[in-house]
Amino acid sequence: MTTPTCSKDAATRARVQHLLDDFFQRGTARAGAYGSQFQRLWQVAGRSVSGGKMMRPLLLINCYDSLTDGTTGPRPEPNGSRIDQVMDLAVALELLHYSFLLHDDVIDGDLLRRGRPNLIGSMLNDGEESLNDTSRSMHWAQTCGILMGDLLLSASHQIFARADLPTAQRNCLLDLLDETITDSVAGEHSDVGLSEAVISPELTTILDMTTRKTATYSFELPMRMAAVLAGASDGVERRLGEIGRHLGLGFQLQDDLLGAFGDPACHGKDHYSDLREGKQTAIIAAARVTGAWPSIEGLLGTAIFSHREATRVSDLLVECGAKARVAELAERELRSAAALLEEPGEEIPPTARTVLIDLADQLRGRCS
Amino acid sequence: MTTPTCSKDAATRARVQHLLDDFFQRGTARAGAYGSQFQRLWQVAGRSVSGGKMMRPLLLINCYDSLTDGTTGPRPEPNGSRIDQVMDLAVALELLHYSFLLHDDVIDGDLLRRGRPNLIGSMLNDGEESLNDTSRSMHWAQTCGILMGDLLLSASHQIFARADLPTAQRNCLLDLLDETITDSVAGEHSDVGLSEAVISPELTTILDMTTRKTATYSFELPMRMAAVLAGASDGVERRLGEIGRHLGLGFQLQDDLLGAFGDPACHGKDHYSDLREGKQTAIIAAARVTGAWPSIEGLLGTAIFSHREATRVSDLLVECGAKARVAELAERELRSAAALLEEPGEEIPPTARTVLIDLADQLRGRCS
Repeated sequence: MTTPTCSKDAATRARVQHLLDDFFQRGTARAGAYGSQFQRLWQVAGRSVSGGKMMRPLLLINCYDSLTDGTTGPRPEPNGSRIDQVMDLAVALELLHYSFLLHDDVIDGDLLRRGRPNLIGSMLNDGEESLNDTSRSMHWAQTCGILMGDLLLSASHQIFARADLPTAQRNCLLDLLDETITDSVAGEHSDVGLSEAVISPELTTILDMTTRKTATYSFELPMRMAAVLAGASDGVERRLGEIGRHLGLGFQLQDDLLGAFGDPACHGKDHYSDLREGKQTAIIAAARVTGAWPSIEGLLGTAIFSHREATRVSDLLVECGAKARVAELAERELRSAAALLEEPGEEIPPTARTVLIDLADQLRGRCS
Repeated sequence: MTTPTCSKDAATRARVQHLLDDFFQRGTARAGAYGSQFQRLWQVAGRSVSGGKMMRPLLLINCYDSLTDGTTGPRPEPNGSRIDQVMDLAVALELLHYSFLLHDDVIDGDLLRRGRPNLIGSMLNDGEESLNDTSRSMHWAQTCGILMGDLLLSASHQIFARADLPTAQRNCLLDLLDETITDSVAGEHSDVGLSEAVISPELTTILDMTTRKTATYSFELPMRMAAVLAGASDGVERRLGEIGRHLGLGFQLQDDLLGAFGDPACHGKDHYSDLREGKQTAIIAAARVTGAWPSIEGLLGTAIFSHREATRVSDLLVECGAKARVAELAERELRSAAALLEEPGEEIPPTARTVLIDLADQLRGRCS
């Protein structure tokens, strides 16, 4: 990762953050007409979503720039500058991401995100002064999570719907959004179905779930959107989508590894929260086919899953080879992405190839 | 309500139902690629949303027809027929309605709708074979409700976004959708805030909540959409919106009365479910300022709120005059709507006036 990339990324991040701040400020001002509690919800939402890595906006903008050599694209501009449209759509991606996070947090009962109280956790603390019944207060906080998720999902759609582009191009983006939301919702549905033992925990099912829940909207969508916006060929769009799926699955498998074995001070999640929630990750699936599984299963089933049990499970997952197996799967996905970048056929422009090789390298070295 | 209106409405309803069936069939077919559990969710959703009154689609279509004298509208058609666009948008209204119902049912913990198990109730029964822990099974069923609500909210947006209309007109509809979703979400937020005693239960707050939660999306939105689609003046659109808000508030106050005093066999809801859930309806607000309040409050606070307590509360709400007060408020709203129809200034076309007077008459006589 070179210094020019870093400082360009920092500038892009600041620009997207500025647009997001503006979005939440307008939302908060408008919410004032509905009373102080609704305004408070918008304020807390604006605060709790700031400070993210903006991975998805950066991926869209960097891919778009690399496909157009940093110019405003090969097509005539209908109105305003194309790069403004791309920035708006980058904001739409981030709002979509937040809406998924909010509904995931409601579903999982999570109160922390990035090491701080998430929106639900914040509303819970907010409410404690006026409520003396904790379960009702949790109901209030989770209601806020569902409703703000609906607002952000709607806001993301509004930006796609209003993109000032030729109809065919806008409809292409709407198709991508539609497929992505179906994939992401199906992935979340499968994730919960696996935890609840409604769906059988085969490794292939878990890898499909992981791809759908994360890779599609976080990688494939921004990369394909960049291709559509840059007026690239269908073949390039498809190839970028495939590369995105591999990068995204690699990224999420790394995330699972960081959740089970990483330093919580670095990645900001509840330590061992996946293990505690009984999440069926690829690591658990890899462990299930080893001799260590009866011991691991016994520990996961204990009524009080303390730090002691978590550490023991973590050690067993290393000893039985599950950690190494998933690290190998993650590496395989990053290698597949790199191979697709080199493969003849649909030609990815050299600038775009550089951006994606750089991204794969960053993913390889990540610790958060 | 004349016979020709009835048979025209029945034909419109059948046409919208056909489009909805088609939507859910396509969704179910597509869900097959994600496994049997996801397909099952789509099947149950399709089944549990059919058989509604289609009040919102009918209001849009009848208003649109009345503003265009049943022709395809005064503006040149960009592509396809305008009435097909109106039918698609009628479907979008119904999908929006379902998505709100699903998230409301999750928030309220309701398992019945129109006298039958709602989606959550159906998924709960579905899951019982493979799950032996009821609280996990409820978690699974409610997760299905949140996720299907997200899919339907997205599907509604997709239809608005793809409306094959001039950009300014499509953006007008998107503005209406945006305002409506903010209103509806703020209304639901306020409804839960009132139940949880986070918001103080003044009658004006409750009437605002009622207008936002129901009147905006169920009446104002379809009527204003009809005006935009028919190319009516801004003044007519605004006037129809005002009339819609009055009709919608009148409608919902009647709904509250039916919930507390109506025949459940007729309206298909849990008997006394609003009272049981501690909902802050206008009836409760009207009772709060009477001498009967201490007795009513005492009964509402009992740990087991049986049929016996519910009947006693219901009797007290009649005796203290709260029922009559709310019936009077509902009647006042219907009268305000009628007065706006007659008021000089922005001229509502006579055909549209007939449709809306007919609607107000139907609302006056409703028992479900």
